[in-house]
Amino acid sequence: MTTAHHSPDQPDGKAKPQAPLTAQDSLGISTRTQLRPIHQIGAELGLDEDLIEPYGRGVGKVDLAAIDRLAQRPRAKYILVTAVTPTPLGEGKTTTAVGLGQGLQHTGRRAAVAVRQPSLGPTMGIKGGGTGGGWSQVVPMDRLNLHLTGDLHAVTAAHNQLAAMVDNHLHRGSPSGLHPERVTWRRVMDVNDRSLRQIITGLGPPGGGPASNGPLRQSGFDITAASEVMATLSLARSLEELRARLGRIVVGATGDGEPVTAEDLKAAGAMTVLLREALQPNLLQTVEHTPALVHCGPFGNIATGNSSVVADLIGTRATDYLITEAGFAADMGAERFFNIKCRVSGLEPDAAVVVTTVRALKVHSGRHRVVAGKALPEGMGQENPEEVRTGAENLRAQLRIIRRHGVTPVVAVNSFPTDFASEHQVIAEVAAEEGARCAVSTHFSDGGAGAAELAEAVAEAAAEPGEFQFLYPEEASLAEKIETIATEVYGAEGVDLSPAATKHLAAYTDAGYGHLPVCVAKTHLSMSADPKLVGAPTGWRLPVREVRLSAGAGFVYPICGTMQTMPGLGASPAAEQIDIDSEGRTVGLF
Amino acid sequence: MTTAHHSPDQPDGKAKPQAPLTAQDSLGISTRTQLRPIHQIGAELGLDEDLIEPYGRGVGKVDLAAIDRLAQRPRAKYILVTAVTPTPLGEGKTTTAVGLGQGLQHTGRRAAVAVRQPSLGPTMGIKGGGTGGGWSQVVPMDRLNLHLTGDLHAVTAAHNQLAAMVDNHLHRGSPSGLHPERVTWRRVMDVNDRSLRQIITGLGPPGGGPASNGPLRQSGFDITAASEVMATLSLARSLEELRARLGRIVVGATGDGEPVTAEDLKAAGAMTVLLREALQPNLLQTVEHTPALVHCGPFGNIATGNSSVVADLIGTRATDYLITEAGFAADMGAERFFNIKCRVSGLEPDAAVVVTTVRALKVHSGRHRVVAGKALPEGMGQENPEEVRTGAENLRAQLRIIRRHGVTPVVAVNSFPTDFASEHQVIAEVAAEEGARCAVSTHFSDGGAGAAELAEAVAEAAAEPGEFQFLYPEEASLAEKIETIATEVYGAEGVDLSPAATKHLAAYTDAGYGHLPVCVAKTHLSMSADPKLVGAPTGWRLPVREVRLSAGAGFVYPICGTMQTMPGLGASPAAEQIDIDSEGRTVGLF
Repeated sequence: MTTAHHSPDQPDGKAKPQAPLTAQDSLGISTRTQLRPIHQIGAELGLDEDLIEPYGRGVGKVDLAAIDRLAQRPRAKYILVTAVTPTPLGEGKTTTAVGLGQGLQHTGRRAAVAVRQPSLGPTMGIKGGGTGGGWSQVVPMDRLNLHLTGDLHAVTAAHNQLAAMVDNHLHRGSPSGLHPERVTWRRVMDVNDRSLRQIITGLGPPGGGPASNGPLRQSGFDITAASEVMATLSLARSLEELRARLGRIVVGATGDGEPVTAEDLKAAGAMTVLLREALQPNLLQTVEHTPALVHCGPFGNIATGNSSVVADLIGTRATDYLITEAGFAADMGAERFFNIKCRVSGLEPDAAVVVTTVRALKVHSGRHRVVAGKALPEGMGQENPEEVRTGAENLRAQLRIIRRHGVTPVVAVNSFPTDFASEHQVIAEVAAEEGARCAVSTHFSDGGAGAAELAEAVAEAAAEPGEFQFLYPEEASLAEKIETIATEVYGAEGVDLSPAATKHLAAYTDAGYGHLPVCVAKTHLSMSADPKLVGAPTGWRLPVREVRLSAGAGFVYPICGTMQTMPGLGASPAAEQIDIDSEGRTVGLF
Repeated sequence: MTTAHHSPDQPDGKAKPQAPLTAQDSLGISTRTQLRPIHQIGAELGLDEDLIEPYGRGVGKVDLAAIDRLAQRPRAKYILVTAVTPTPLGEGKTTTAVGLGQGLQHTGRRAAVAVRQPSLGPTMGIKGGGTGGGWSQVVPMDRLNLHLTGDLHAVTAAHNQLAAMVDNHLHRGSPSGLHPERVTWRRVMDVNDRSLRQIITGLGPPGGGPASNGPLRQSGFDITAASEVMATLSLARSLEELRARLGRIVVGATGDGEPVTAEDLKAAGAMTVLLREALQPNLLQTVEHTPALVHCGPFGNIATGNSSVVADLIGTRATDYLITEAGFAADMGAERFFNIKCRVSGLEPDAAVVVTTVRALKVHSGRHRVVAGKALPEGMGQENPEEVRTGAENLRAQLRIIRRHGVTPVVAVNSFPTDFASEHQVIAEVAAEEGARCAVSTHFSDGGAGAAELAEAVAEAAAEPGEFQFLYPEEASLAEKIETIATEVYGAEGVDLSPAATKHLAAYTDAGYGHLPVCVAKTHLSMSADPKLVGAPTGWRLPVREVRLSAGAGFVYPICGTMQTMPGLGASPAAEQIDIDSEGRTVGLF
């Protein structure tokens, strides 16, 4: 029996622990990495020193002037990393993106990665950090998973400044006519705190006047990543455009249903000033010193789940291969990448990597169920290539979504020590049947050397002539856009709009938002709207309960199912393990 | 008639606008300042490059290793800047502290200033920034008044992480026995938002279980500066001590009244890790390149209102004169500086500057009333030295508080263009009668040159032998400590403890907190507990309504009157004026 995980005789020349790496080792690897000065990393991107402000050890912010400064440079190959529909454990998309960047560098190419910034709430909550892991991670991981340069805090501040101005506006008699019961703007905080999901604000002495605490209203908090300000920041191309987009944010409506905006409340200028530094991408490095642009983390459930447009605008002129990552599976993250993010940026991808694991495909066979925080079902560890073939229907569907947009896909098998060679073989066969290149990658334990085969496959794919195309034209109606995504991407038979949703679509169209793209909010655990349906479900329809507007970010988002926008803490929050040791070093962060 | 404001023939050689400077000019002065590299500023403090991490343009963080590294250096003269009881407009204490630092440098001495970090809420609310102003300010003022290096955001994150763990603990059946109605830990946000003062959290499906949003509770938000985490951060001497102090924070009590701490909830480690960078003082410079340590901003109403202990521990070994500032008047800020902050730091001040204005003393005459946001009463602009003499009773009382602690006072007249020479003369006479040096300072419009006379007076005072002493010994009972502060510092005839306050004092003493110092929470607009009583009120008693505990920060705070811990926004919030101009530059910040 041959397993695909790293064996000690692999000649990659890197010191590794004897036992397989675990997520908990990632902090140790990060800490032991000898960081290169950030100006040196910038120089590898052709960024002059004046374009990079250092922000503490190994971290810099890139001035947006870089976009103009690099405009004459040749455009990099632009590679998207996406995935099959994941299990609740995640399938290692960020790790693969980082590993691929290192792999391209390992094979003699210039490359950089563009990834999202992790959220503090989940770091303190149930899951590990979001910066890759093992020998394929962005460092320093402790700063990256905590405050980094404060971008998320700036989003929190800008969002809540607007919220304070909304309530103050009501407190002062609502000169705009904004109706207290039609306020849709909530507050945000970067913490997992279920107690804040639904709250009542403004308790205190009744009757108005200076002693009053404002209108008594029901409201609540979302996690900062779910803020429309975050979605807006990730899609702005300049400070001026950010200013304009923030002004368009709708905070609620008058009694007559007229939208009231951040501009109406004179809040957009202050919000822009609060976000000035946050609009600059953060520059870090991987454990192998590959440049890493880390910027924005819009919540994949209700926003694009993609890193920022400005990071990609800079990155695609600063290297030869820019690896950028989209959240969730291809049906969600990649579709939004193609039709929302690329529409704004004007950039066209040259290839898309679809990350899969044997584990995920076994789950897509429908024979196993994985629950976060519990051990894997016993049967999953047995060699079973047929299960993998059955589950690969999901992989096939994701590959076809990439093809539908005229982009060349590559399958990346994120290898686990528990995989069997026969199972990898099945995935290679499925990829070949779909006309896609395929490579097994051991980047988690082997770094860039483990991703060398993947790097070669990606370089070949990116060299093919592309014919990138959007899924739908801007001119299509909002309902048509939803229908197209549901049928052509998700494989639904059609869309069922609730009466409310129909009304919302008409109202947004009347108000001049009909040209916007659509960001469907549905579960990420299935291609359908039902998280229990694995594989590539057929014979179902997409139920749209309501449709909301992100006028600042520039999309409408149909709600299909229940979207949780403020996580809670588990019975044993990760925060309980985080501490300093007797030498003052951080421990327990992973 | 001679006025004391700057006239064009003063030979200070600096370009100035023709019209008197206003607060609105401060951003322009800041923007035009050619910042020196922060490592150069650090070098002037004898700080090796490895001790300073740059955090964006003109800002660095100082590694706490500096404390040990500088331990063998001679100790600087340690100068406190405090004030008379201010009007609601403030009397320019920070500006004077900055101007004095520049003045010492201007007169050929090595000096540095240690000031508090301003809060974002008030910057967006009613008042200008808190970094000095005009030609005596710390720069870059835009970054300083907004996020700086994110320390306040880190305090918010650590505070609210604990809050989330409190509610999650209750949600999970409260293994510690913490009673939902005896939780005292609220949440914080750095915004002026009255709607959050009193809220109800945990709305949602009743009956517990996974769908529940936790216990339905009444709670609320304070502004971040009012967080006990901020008070704790400002008094910690090392990361290890911070860890221990955070663990001692009391979040509430069991049904039996037993305190439940952050340590009990396993939250203190994660809080410490979140505060790691925030514990490092920020290094900036003044417009004249004097080194400025900017660190912490504990809320003066319920905490010390002093900048951090670590900044002063570093600063007093890094220069020849360290100017440090305490919030409010001497009866509050200086008393806490002497008896809380110096007790922790072990540092002894060599002189204390009491800042006064003609305006404040005229108000202390009892003949005028100043309201923030409104024009000054007309009569106040008239030449009236006798009014100043009457109001100077407040100045005399503040000087005696300094003397009571064995420290040499110096009177600094913060000069305004509307002052008359005869009025300055009266202040000089009063100072002489109290045996204190006195100097008029025009630092706002003239920078360090305008503070040269003050610098000479301070240098002379600091050269006198000191006999610093605490007001009360640690062993005195909590009630005795309150009595001593009330009678010997505030001039009260005695203390009236409510039955609740008496009970609280007994409970804290029983629980082992009797050795802690006392931080009296009372109005800052009077030496008494009644904001309407100006001058040096006599014949009154200090009413203590209740007593609260800051076990992490390490003090108890008796509440005398109503303490607002979450400001609101005015009818025209400052945020409405803040924006970017057509070149993308920040405007409207002051």
